[in-house]
Amino acid sequence: MREKPTKLTTEEIDTLLNTYKDWKLETKDGVSFFKYEKEFRDFKEAFVFLTKLAFVSESLDHHAEIWNVYNKLKIKLFTHETNTLSTKDKHFITALMA
Amino acid sequence: MREKPTKLTTEEIDTLLNTYKDWKLETKDGVSFFKYEKEFRDFKEAFVFLTKLAFVSESLDHHAEIWNVYNKLKIKLFTHETNTLSTKDKHFITALMA
Repeated sequence: MREKPTKLTTEEIDTLLNTYKDWKLETKDGVSFFKYEKEFRDFKEAFVFLTKLAFVSESLDHHAEIWNVYNKLKIKLFTHETNTLSTKDKHFITALMA
Repeated sequence: MREKPTKLTTEEIDTLLNTYKDWKLETKDGVSFFKYEKEFRDFKEAFVFLTKLAFVSESLDHHAEIWNVYNKLKIKLFTHETNTLSTKDKHFITALMA
């Protein structure tokens, strides 16, 4: 899915956030990004999720910022090439949460 | 290897840092920790290393702080239960870099 990313509309962002409640919209230094924050049962469960994320990242050629300590996981996602939230982010979240 | 962690001596820390050059000693807010920082060829290579780290973490029951974006990986390691650098950190680094 190496399509050219297009900027998400406000409606598309709202739909995504309403569908996937663990994802929030944040803005820092004028750049908006999707933020995922979760406490898993333990490290093993967090890493199972990270492994799925790795496969999604490779298949979509889209990579997030990841932070983990034991059962805690944070993911920050936006599209570098457009500096916005794009269809690549939407596809990423949809595939990861499927 | 669920031994009780004991604090590393200065000599043990120096030996570890001299053996594994990608690991540095840092101190923040009075707490010392080991820091690993590396740029891999791509995300796939970074995740191969993270997968090894996951196995080491589980087998030693010792978990680091992990940060990743694409090919960039940072690891922060110290022993929460003693709030120092301990034998658990030494075993972790030795197993990870083997």
